[in-house]
Amino acid sequence: MKVKTIECKNGSVRFIDQTKLPAKFEYAHTKDLGVLWKAIRELKVRGAPALAAAAALGVVLGMRGCRAKDFRRFKKDLNRVCTYIGSSRPTAVNLFWGLERMKAIALKNKAKPVERIKKLLLEEAQRIIEKDRITCRQIGASGARLIRDNDTLMTVCNAGMLATIDYGTALGVFYAAKERGKKFRVYSCETRPLLQGSRLTAWELRQNKIDATLICDNTVASLMRQGKINMVITGADRIAANGDSANKIGTLTVAILAKYHHIPFYIAAPSSTFDLKIKSGRDIPIEERNPEEVRCIMLKKRAAPKAAKVYNPAFDVTAHELVTGFITDKGIIRPPYRENIKKHIRG
Amino acid sequence: MKVKTIECKNGSVRFIDQTKLPAKFEYAHTKDLGVLWKAIRELKVRGAPALAAAAALGVVLGMRGCRAKDFRRFKKDLNRVCTYIGSSRPTAVNLFWGLERMKAIALKNKAKPVERIKKLLLEEAQRIIEKDRITCRQIGASGARLIRDNDTLMTVCNAGMLATIDYGTALGVFYAAKERGKKFRVYSCETRPLLQGSRLTAWELRQNKIDATLICDNTVASLMRQGKINMVITGADRIAANGDSANKIGTLTVAILAKYHHIPFYIAAPSSTFDLKIKSGRDIPIEERNPEEVRCIMLKKRAAPKAAKVYNPAFDVTAHELVTGFITDKGIIRPPYRENIKKHIRG
Repeated sequence: MKVKTIECKNGSVRFIDQTKLPAKFEYAHTKDLGVLWKAIRELKVRGAPALAAAAALGVVLGMRGCRAKDFRRFKKDLNRVCTYIGSSRPTAVNLFWGLERMKAIALKNKAKPVERIKKLLLEEAQRIIEKDRITCRQIGASGARLIRDNDTLMTVCNAGMLATIDYGTALGVFYAAKERGKKFRVYSCETRPLLQGSRLTAWELRQNKIDATLICDNTVASLMRQGKINMVITGADRIAANGDSANKIGTLTVAILAKYHHIPFYIAAPSSTFDLKIKSGRDIPIEERNPEEVRCIMLKKRAAPKAAKVYNPAFDVTAHELVTGFITDKGIIRPPYRENIKKHIRG
Repeated sequence: MKVKTIECKNGSVRFIDQTKLPAKFEYAHTKDLGVLWKAIRELKVRGAPALAAAAALGVVLGMRGCRAKDFRRFKKDLNRVCTYIGSSRPTAVNLFWGLERMKAIALKNKAKPVERIKKLLLEEAQRIIEKDRITCRQIGASGARLIRDNDTLMTVCNAGMLATIDYGTALGVFYAAKERGKKFRVYSCETRPLLQGSRLTAWELRQNKIDATLICDNTVASLMRQGKINMVITGADRIAANGDSANKIGTLTVAILAKYHHIPFYIAAPSSTFDLKIKSGRDIPIEERNPEEVRCIMLKKRAAPKAAKVYNPAFDVTAHELVTGFITDKGIIRPPYRENIKKHIRG
C-alpha cells in the first residue's frame, strides 16, 4: 500500500486525517497554519517523525504571508511562528528538530531577499520529507535482521507509515522483514485512550498484508506469560542522551513486562528523535491531555461519570536499562548507551 | 450509598443492569431463567461473589416450574438447570460454588416433598445472599488495617458493591478503611474491554465519596515509577490451592508491575473463591469473549477494522509468587500458600 501521510501539494498542505481511520481514509488540505496547528493538537496528523514534516510545512504556511522587507523582521516573524507551532505538542522532539532546521536554513541565507528565503524554506521542508522516506528504510534494513522466521512480535501505538511519511519506524522494520521474505506475526496493543493501535496499526498492518492480532493493552502480560511473544519493537518520541525514551503511554508497562519475561525490547527511531541536550528521561516534558479522552471514548461514547477525576498523560518514559537496543538509520545502538548513542548520533 | 445488586423480590429476581451504568442506574426484573442466563452472559450482573447469588437464584427460577413428583426426577431437572446455568460463564468458581450449595440442600432434603424442596432452595439462595453481606464486611475488616493514612491505592476492574450483594471485596476493604476514619486515595484502572473500572468502579467510589482517579490500563507503570502507588488490592474469580489466582484480564500485568516496583499486591476474596480442587492456575478455565468487545467499544463505537483479528481473554492468572497476601473473611493469608490456604479455608 502506498500513502503519503503529509506533503505540500499545489501550495497547500495535504495530510491524511487520522482521526477518521479506520472508518474513512481521507485527506485534509489546508493553507492555514491555524488549521494545521489544530490538526497536530488533535492528532489528525501525529507520530514523531511525521511531526517534523508537519512542523516544517507549518513554517512554510506561517511565513508565506510574511510582509517583512528585511531579515531582522523576517526572523522575528519566523520565531513567532516557530513558537506557535512548538506550542501544539511538547513531547516529540522531532517537531522541534524540524523547526530548528527551518530556522537554520533561514539564518544561513539571511543575506538573500525575503522571497528567496521563503522558497528555500519550502525546499528545506521537502528535504525533511524526502529524508524521512530514506531514513525509515534505513531503520527497516537495520531492524529486519533481528526478526527470525516464525517470530511473534509485539508493538505499541502506531509507529508506522502513518507516523512517518510513508514507511514507518517500528512497523518499517516489519515491512522491511516482509520484503526480505520473512514470516512472522504481530500483536498490536490497542493503545488507550486514543486507540492508535486499533484505529491505525491494525488497519495499516492489514493493508500491508501482515498477520496482525489486536489486543487490549492489559493483555500483554498474559501473552508473554504464555510464551507467545519473541520480541517487542516500538517507536519513540524523544530519546535522552542516556537512552531513557519517551514514547506513547503504556510503553513503559510493556518494557517492564518484557524484561520480566526475558523478551528483547527494541525501540526503532530516526536520529532526529535523539535529544542529546537532555541527559535523562526526568527532563523530558510529558504532555497531559484532556480527561474526556479517557471518560468518553473517541469523544463519542461516555464510559465514566462526567465528573470522574482522570490522570491522562500522553507519554511515559522507558528507562534505558529496559531497552535491548535502538534500531536507527545509523544501525543498531546497544548499551552502554551514554557512549554509544553519542558515537552513533553525533559521529 | 445503599444498593442490593441482586435479590429475590416478590417471586422475581431483581438485579441492577450494570451495562447501563454509569449513564443509568436501573433495576431489571425477571422470572425467566433464560433472561437471567443472558444477563450473566452479557455481564448485566457480574462479579464473582454476585455470581454465586445469581446462580442460586437461577436455580430457584429454573426449578419453580418443575413438575416432577419424585426426587429422582426432580434431581434430573435440577442437574439440567445447573448445567445450563454453569454454561453461562466458566471462570468464576463462585457460580459453581453457588450451584453446588443448591444441589446439596436438595440432596439433604430428598425425603421431603418436591414443593417443600423448592421452598428450601429459595431459603438457601437467601442464605447465600445474607452470607455474602457478612463475608464482605469480614473481608473489609481484615483488610482495613493494611491501609495507612495518606496511602494511594490501586485497583483493577470492579470488586465492589456491584460485584457482590452490597459491599464489595477489594472495594469493601476501602469502605471498611473509610468507616474507620482512614484517609486515602484510589486509582481505578479502566479495565478494557468492558470498562468495569470506568463504568462501575469510578461510579461506585464517587457514590461512596472516596477520592478516586481513573486511568487507562496502560498508565499503571508510569504511576508506579513515579512512586505514587503504595498498595494494590484486586478481587479474584478463582484461586487455586497454590494461590495462583484468576482475575479480570490485566491483573497479571498490574501484579508484575507491582513486584517490579516493590509495591504490595493483595487479593481480596471470600472463601468461596478458593477452589482447592484445582492445584495451580494452569488448570483454571479462561473464558474468551466476543472479539467485537475489543473492535467496537461498548459495542457502539467502532475502533478497529471489522475484520481485524482479536485475542480477547476475559481473565488472566496471577502467579502466587506475585501475591503479597489474600484478604479473606477468615483473615489474611500469607505465604507459603499451599499450606496456609488449606489451613484457613478448610480449617
